[in-house]
Amino acid sequence: MPDEHGHPSTEEMRLGVVMAALADPLRAKVITELAADDADPERTCASFELGVTKSTVTHHFRVLREAGLISQVDYGNSRKVRLRRADLELRFPGLLDLIVAQE
Amino acid sequence: MPDEHGHPSTEEMRLGVVMAALADPLRAKVITELAADDADPERTCASFELGVTKSTVTHHFRVLREAGLISQVDYGNSRKVRLRRADLELRFPGLLDLIVAQE
Repeated sequence: MPDEHGHPSTEEMRLGVVMAALADPLRAKVITELAADDADPERTCASFELGVTKSTVTHHFRVLREAGLISQVDYGNSRKVRLRRADLELRFPGLLDLIVAQE
Repeated sequence: MPDEHGHPSTEEMRLGVVMAALADPLRAKVITELAADDADPERTCASFELGVTKSTVTHHFRVLREAGLISQVDYGNSRKVRLRRADLELRFPGLLDLIVAQE
């Protein structure tokens, strides 16, 4: 079962759901940026400059979180996201390389 | 430009479009079956037993063809499909392995 923040466990991740998440250009942009940065920084949603309304941003990050691509941490007045790199490598080996290579 | 049957060239294939095609469970089933068979047989659309109407089958195969995942050959009274394995390996190395591994 996903945790209380909607993060699925590695075993719960499904390739079809991950692909549906990545089929959207804005969500693909977020994951490509995160995957290309080996330092795996925590970033705010606003830092991706998606050029859409805040509620649309919230929607896209929820889709990414529920697919298992990112984790979100709530710091009270701000929320940060991080790529679930190790989990993704374990569950879908090579997927992130594929995404970064298409940049 | 895609050819007259809607097959994109390798360079025209886009990962986002391929992922959108694979996000559907029936289309993922078709590609998983094809990718798992190293003999790369030509198959009829009907052979996949998708359990949906003929027009829905036609739709799904068009999406797969336009994404570049399969090629379709018209034999007059029948149409056969084949995985574009070599093109996919060239354009998205490792993608087919990832799909087969999730079976």
